Amino acid sequence: MDTDPGDAVRPDSGDCARPPSGDLVAALDIGGTKIAGALVAGDGRLLVRARRATPAREDGATVMGAVAAVLGELLRSPLWPRVRAVGIGSAGPVDAVAGTVSPVNVPGWRGFPLVAEVARHTGGLPVVLVGDGVAMTAAEHWQGAARGRDNALCMVVSTGVGGGLVLGGRLHAGPTGNAGHIGHISVDLDGAPCPCGARGCVERIASGPNIARRAVADGWRPGPDGDASAEAVAVAARAGDPVALASFARAAQALAAGIAATAALVEIEVAVIGGGVAGAGDVLFGPLRSRLRDYATLSFASGVEVLPARLGSDAGLVGAAAAAAGSVELWGTSAAG
Amino acid sequence: MDTDPGDAVRPDSGDCARPPSGDLVAALDIGGTKIAGALVAGDGRLLVRARRATPAREDGATVMGAVAAVLGELLRSPLWPRVRAVGIGSAGPVDAVAGTVSPVNVPGWRGFPLVAEVARHTGGLPVVLVGDGVAMTAAEHWQGAARGRDNALCMVVSTGVGGGLVLGGRLHAGPTGNAGHIGHISVDLDGAPCPCGARGCVERIASGPNIARRAVADGWRPGPDGDASAEAVAVAARAGDPVALASFARAAQALAAGIAATAALVEIEVAVIGGGVAGAGDVLFGPLRSRLRDYATLSFASGVEVLPARLGSDAGLVGAAAAAAGSVELWGTSAAG
Repeated sequence: MDTDPGDAVRPDSGDCARPPSGDLVAALDIGGTKIAGALVAGDGRLLVRARRATPAREDGATVMGAVAAVLGELLRSPLWPRVRAVGIGSAGPVDAVAGTVSPVNVPGWRGFPLVAEVARHTGGLPVVLVGDGVAMTAAEHWQGAARGRDNALCMVVSTGVGGGLVLGGRLHAGPTGNAGHIGHISVDLDGAPCPCGARGCVERIASGPNIARRAVADGWRPGPDGDASAEAVAVAARAGDPVALASFARAAQALAAGIAATAALVEIEVAVIGGGVAGAGDVLFGPLRSRLRDYATLSFASGVEVLPARLGSDAGLVGAAAAAAGSVELWGTSAAG
Repeated sequence: MDTDPGDAVRPDSGDCARPPSGDLVAALDIGGTKIAGALVAGDGRLLVRARRATPAREDGATVMGAVAAVLGELLRSPLWPRVRAVGIGSAGPVDAVAGTVSPVNVPGWRGFPLVAEVARHTGGLPVVLVGDGVAMTAAEHWQGAARGRDNALCMVVSTGVGGGLVLGGRLHAGPTGNAGHIGHISVDLDGAPCPCGARGCVERIASGPNIARRAVADGWRPGPDGDASAEAVAVAARAGDPVALASFARAAQALAAGIAATAALVEIEVAVIGGGVAGAGDVLFGPLRSRLRDYATLSFASGVEVLPARLGSDAGLVGAAAAAAGSVELWGTSAAG
């Protein structure tokens, strides 16, 4: 167990050696690679952390065992009695109504009753479930680049493409906790088949693996280290490789069409983009901002800003806590939910 | 001036010869062809009507003169003293924050201060402005096919393609009154240029004029009457003409991709479709429902229903009234706003 009260996740918070007083939220961030947990304070700091690898290829009970191990570490913290709610951000799809999750990359969990299982371990505290894109959005709205924005799209562009929405100043999780799934809107209705079953989805064009695949297909070759990842394509693009640049430009075009669609549908003032692919920097953000002007042409949509996310790998935990705090009305109006 | 207290616009209302008592809303529906007005009761009936052709090619003051003439008829009604608010649904774009409108088909109005002008004529009553797609949505939510649905997309497919959203049980007009602009989301990012400046917009593929244009380009020929409208293409499609059927199928595909995108982004349970093209019936709705299964593949999106709109040409007036009533909290919770 890590106990790191000085680990400020607020980008603009000062140093503070003592954990703050007040109510806490226990947060879980559940993905195909790791299961992270934390006790989160009302100022967004992670006071206690725990973590396990996700046994993603095992049966459902084994995966739940890893969640229980993370919760067990948190439960043993002397701070646990101050916990008032549990927030879960999970890889999707989720069903917040049924309290179940079916993460694509965890085949042992299909309609798995995660909320009931977590409630059983945490003594009947309220448990709030949202998708991981919604959680990331709650975090960026509370503490990051979407802070103070009443209408925002936040996205993670990484192995997949996910997202979430802030509408009218509040997190819009949607009835089942899945709103903001921008990765699976089709921007190319006759395009390549997507594993989701549709065609031409934003993720099918703009995710890291698709950026890398396209670059290789168009003739880019990795260096001596054999690294054919999107990160390696980004390095080549920054060095001026035209094929690598073109692959990022195509991803940017798809992201621009998706952001413009979101702006036309719900009116957003900002799109915040995080995840590994966003780390490519200008080779992504430059063409993205340019193409957004091509697609977001309506007067009320044309001013959408594009900003990099400010929270890093803790966004899932911070956001799960924010979503839960908002849902049970903890922490006044400071949290994003 | 028409005074028709028996003109029930609630599809399921009974006959009623006496106008209901209680507060009224004055509604305006402003389009490129006509300017309609009505006094609307809390049960959705239009008690007094007025109407002028839109002098769309004249200067802004002349267009406003037609609005003032419509308002003048309403103001002279003995029912006017019961009016508590004015609702305007206008062809877009609109700017509900600035109170201005810039209808594409009314070039004399660019950033025209319609709210201030209407307020000047109506003695300081609250004036609520929304786009026409939002107004139609308010009407269908209050009285039509989206009644009782907490999350819905309503669309008009006609000369253009517009729409609006109900989210969490309430009309979601967006900060500037333009949310739900599904006609200008790109579902074909490399597709044909759209007059809006983008490419491959839903409207560019699915509007009536584009259905007709595509059928003619692909070899369909109008009958002896020379009617080359989408309605004529629909007649041919119902008679089995393969080119006419294919043009409707392509429109249906674009609409399906747009509806699926909306479901992924904000979680909707139903898409309600009105407007002249929806009158084509099964030649549109059949392939639309089929293609929606291809694009709306995520678990939380796959159950979206597609329903024809229930309100006809009065939807703009009923919806403008509902949006205003909701905004100023008239009529309890019965209106859609």
